[in-house]
Amino acid sequence: MATARRHRLSLDVRRDQLIRLGVDIFSERPFDEVSIDDIAAAAGISKGLLYHYFGSKRGFYVEVVRWAAGELEAVAEGDEALPVLERLGQGLDRYLEYVETHARGYATVLRAGIGSDAEVAAIVEGVRQTMVARVLEAVPGLAGDPGRRLAVRGWVGFVEAASLDWLDDRALGREQLRDQLMATLTGAVAAAAEATAAARQATQS
Amino acid sequence: MATARRHRLSLDVRRDQLIRLGVDIFSERPFDEVSIDDIAAAAGISKGLLYHYFGSKRGFYVEVVRWAAGELEAVAEGDEALPVLERLGQGLDRYLEYVETHARGYATVLRAGIGSDAEVAAIVEGVRQTMVARVLEAVPGLAGDPGRRLAVRGWVGFVEAASLDWLDDRALGREQLRDQLMATLTGAVAAAAEATAAARQATQS
Repeated sequence: MATARRHRLSLDVRRDQLIRLGVDIFSERPFDEVSIDDIAAAAGISKGLLYHYFGSKRGFYVEVVRWAAGELEAVAEGDEALPVLERLGQGLDRYLEYVETHARGYATVLRAGIGSDAEVAAIVEGVRQTMVARVLEAVPGLAGDPGRRLAVRGWVGFVEAASLDWLDDRALGREQLRDQLMATLTGAVAAAAEATAAARQATQS
Repeated sequence: MATARRHRLSLDVRRDQLIRLGVDIFSERPFDEVSIDDIAAAAGISKGLLYHYFGSKRGFYVEVVRWAAGELEAVAEGDEALPVLERLGQGLDRYLEYVETHARGYATVLRAGIGSDAEVAAIVEGVRQTMVARVLEAVPGLAGDPGRRLAVRGWVGFVEAASLDWLDDRALGREQLRDQLMATLTGAVAAAAEATAAARQATQS
């Protein structure tokens, strides 16, 4: 039984190694250009073993995206010991660092080469929801108000679109981008408050 | 020859009618749930004729998305006679009206229910670029500055994410959403200016 457990463990380790390798591969080359043969060659294993673990190239890719999404969420969490807004800024900084390191993979997932695969889309949506939840937790008074909630959800869309644009030309430094995104969040929340107040006034008059 | 031209014309008209019907169908039901039989039945034509025009359900869908994208761009253009910012606000208002009327189709295209389709992604990206170009044209001084350009690109991502969120619960009135989005654009551009100034100061000191 100990042998069986050890065998099982080494299989899991092997699987994780393959996925990590996939993160590297898909960070540099688009999904459509990477063949199962390329992956097998890079891993030094047979195609058959790869199919055994993941079923198909798509199956492998989905696991790679799931892994990368988990990593991205983890790095973007920021240091618990920091005050909430600083923590948010630090998390955003690490998010952008991850995006920069895994540029090709990030763009592929969001620009929908294979990105519009339903399972991949669900993983991406999960990351968005985590980001929204973290901002809502970090800034008091956001969660209860529909306009401000929408501002946070919209801001996550802003971060994605801006990140993709940034990867195209890197016209800004990463720090400047981080500062701009943080200031945009403040502006978006203020815009929500403004529009809510105006709508209330319009109803009353 | 006149007869041939008339015949050709009536084929084009028929094709357009089918696409318009498709816009209605996919505005209410997701891609995966609509069969070629449903479409043929709704159009009162044979499946064979549908295949003749569009090749496949996917081919039909792509043409429907292309048509809807063109309509959306046209309605969101706003009245040329208006001052630029008012025109932008009016265009946004009509954008949201279109989104509301075609809720299901809008969500399907952006939430990517059709599976990996590069052509659909390219059409969506085209609409985004039109929106970015219109804002850059409308507000002087935006196009030349990388931070502000990024703000506009990010804002279009904000509009999409916020629209999807809004369609889920309609917790805000459409006018309030429009006002909030316009104020968010102002805030995002201000945030860009702020971050650019801070980065410049950091370099100088």
